[in-house]
Amino acid sequence: MLSCSLERLSEKIKTFSKFGDTGNGGVTRFSLSEAALLARNEFKKKMEAIGAAVVTDDMANMYATIPGTEDLPAIISGSHLDSVRQGGNYDGVLGVLAAMEAAETIVKEQIPHRHPITVVVWTNEEGARFEPAMMSSGVICGKFDKAEMLASEAKDILGYTFGEALEKSGFMGKEENRMTPAKHAALVELHIEQGPVLETEGIDIGVVEGVCGMINYEFTFTGQAGHAGTTPMKYRKDALYAAVKAIQYLHDELDRLDSKLVYTTGKISAHPNIHTIIPDEVKFTLDARHQDPKVLEQVLEIMKKIPGEVEKCQVSYEEAWSRNTVSFTSELVDYVEKSAKEYGYFNQRIYSGPGHDAQFVIDIIPTTMIFVPSVGGHSHCELEYTPAENCLKGANVLMQTLLSIDQQ
Amino acid sequence: MLSCSLERLSEKIKTFSKFGDTGNGGVTRFSLSEAALLARNEFKKKMEAIGAAVVTDDMANMYATIPGTEDLPAIISGSHLDSVRQGGNYDGVLGVLAAMEAAETIVKEQIPHRHPITVVVWTNEEGARFEPAMMSSGVICGKFDKAEMLASEAKDILGYTFGEALEKSGFMGKEENRMTPAKHAALVELHIEQGPVLETEGIDIGVVEGVCGMINYEFTFTGQAGHAGTTPMKYRKDALYAAVKAIQYLHDELDRLDSKLVYTTGKISAHPNIHTIIPDEVKFTLDARHQDPKVLEQVLEIMKKIPGEVEKCQVSYEEAWSRNTVSFTSELVDYVEKSAKEYGYFNQRIYSGPGHDAQFVIDIIPTTMIFVPSVGGHSHCELEYTPAENCLKGANVLMQTLLSIDQQ
Repeated sequence: MLSCSLERLSEKIKTFSKFGDTGNGGVTRFSLSEAALLARNEFKKKMEAIGAAVVTDDMANMYATIPGTEDLPAIISGSHLDSVRQGGNYDGVLGVLAAMEAAETIVKEQIPHRHPITVVVWTNEEGARFEPAMMSSGVICGKFDKAEMLASEAKDILGYTFGEALEKSGFMGKEENRMTPAKHAALVELHIEQGPVLETEGIDIGVVEGVCGMINYEFTFTGQAGHAGTTPMKYRKDALYAAVKAIQYLHDELDRLDSKLVYTTGKISAHPNIHTIIPDEVKFTLDARHQDPKVLEQVLEIMKKIPGEVEKCQVSYEEAWSRNTVSFTSELVDYVEKSAKEYGYFNQRIYSGPGHDAQFVIDIIPTTMIFVPSVGGHSHCELEYTPAENCLKGANVLMQTLLSIDQQ
Repeated sequence: MLSCSLERLSEKIKTFSKFGDTGNGGVTRFSLSEAALLARNEFKKKMEAIGAAVVTDDMANMYATIPGTEDLPAIISGSHLDSVRQGGNYDGVLGVLAAMEAAETIVKEQIPHRHPITVVVWTNEEGARFEPAMMSSGVICGKFDKAEMLASEAKDILGYTFGEALEKSGFMGKEENRMTPAKHAALVELHIEQGPVLETEGIDIGVVEGVCGMINYEFTFTGQAGHAGTTPMKYRKDALYAAVKAIQYLHDELDRLDSKLVYTTGKISAHPNIHTIIPDEVKFTLDARHQDPKVLEQVLEIMKKIPGEVEKCQVSYEEAWSRNTVSFTSELVDYVEKSAKEYGYFNQRIYSGPGHDAQFVIDIIPTTMIFVPSVGGHSHCELEYTPAENCLKGANVLMQTLLSIDQQ
């Protein structure tokens, strides 16, 4: 079967790893930073070299399009070039590079295709410097208000906004260039899994069915401060001990639910957080994700059984954020699976835990995703790694899926 | 029986509450700060007004002495004038004011006494701006190295040392003025309890037998970071959950030991402390106090039973600091008890949980302490409060104890 080039794809990965190189195997490439602009210029140069026309929209999303043989809406693929601080060389960028490689193969091998094929770069997916994440796909898919997004302040420079960074970047284009259902037929985003499942189970390709729904709550336990040396145990209202009891209860109960449920207490803080003072306030988060909304309902029921008072401390909680499960277009999911099978790659259907631009795009055009394994499950860190051979498998499945959509 | 003056003592409390007034019922009066220097000047003025000679030693400890009728070593009482940030109007300062009031009563009532009586102000008991706590009593009692203490850096101004603050204060005197066994016969320190026991049990006077021994350990749990949405529960090495298990184990086991044992996890931190990431490192402290070293040995045995691996996370711990139980001079403890009984005050023997300057002084001269109740157990905060009537009871017992020592 037709294959993308391992050599070319490896070269792309190596080239882009230099933009924002931390010197420790990763990159810091905040959206619209100098490093990100270098990456964008390289993207433009490489796409123009294979005959693509490159435009940007008003959120600086980039679209590099090679023409098709008919006057049809374009089929899109891509992801993002920005990273978190000390991130890796695969999250986001690999989705762009695989799409570039698929397009380059189609051009160089002169594979006929009716639809134009567009490689997209979404602006500020990570939200690492300007919140929120998935900002620009969100704006053009009607999830976020543009004016609010332009006013988003940098986390490091007081008063410096995303809007200013956009103006300065030189990549702000016209609103008429945005992805729309009229001009675009479908989107396929390749991404690393960012978890250990595919690697552990010896799978090459994750056939992504959708993005898990999630809930995220913040709990607050309020007790009474007291000196560690003077307050007898029986008089204490220790907010940390109350929180410990609740975390243990949540683990015990949530472990009984469906085994695909994931839940995490990632953040905890104690006040005043001094070793000689009994904490009077402790906060912790609970993040829970599952593809089935009924399971998340069960999580909420378990949470609600926590009494208003635990170990003489007051308990309260509130939703920080949540999202419903997103299901990708089943026809496209089938194409991904079929393509993987044709190449003889081990594949498995999977739901995404993290969010991706594709979850917004599904609201306006047919969409799906392809996952490749993350070695050791590492992501958002310099250890992020997917072997080049597996990246190639991803690019091949991506190319074949785009061609399947084209022949639809 | 002879009594100190409620009016005078109340006036003293009110006057000193103005130095570093936070406007919320408390004070911020870091050692040698402008507010602390105002308090020192007021102390000097008030003591000179009753005929005391005031000197300072090389650590700026202040000694205000009224003469006795014989050429004998002085009997000392006092405490400290510095506070923590947003501290109260009783911790430390009340021990100075009660000693001032006892001395003033002795002078005004012309009560004969053979020994000189010295009111002492120790420099930097709290260690709130320059570490460690009990710095200056520690230096003159041979616990701390003076040169090291002078080099102690301020927590707020880089490079600014305790030595420089001392120079600038105008209160640095001669080393020959230090408290010594040759010149000083005994010390009695009055202090607030800083805990709820006395108030809860309806006691006026705590007859302090000593200062509890303590151990303080820091535990570290090392797991593996992972994305909250992608890492199945079975693959996780969640350092926070491991820590929760250990805290629960410690509570379960330590609760079986002697009921006077107090233990506290006051400080906890998770890394990276992001709600969507499984923590890879969690640290927490364990502070445990008891007057009997055997009980603290039992605490250590329980700690040592925590396995090296909990919930697939590595466990380690190390001692942050510790102190042995200090027993005060039994003869002086008896004098305090006898004085309280003579006044008809409800009294109870008690061990101090927190540390005090007196625990260093006992190494060089006979020493004891008197506690008065802390309403609500509040201390090191603006809520700190002891009713004036109970402060007066403390001052009376202090005065009577000083006179008992004098007649020894």
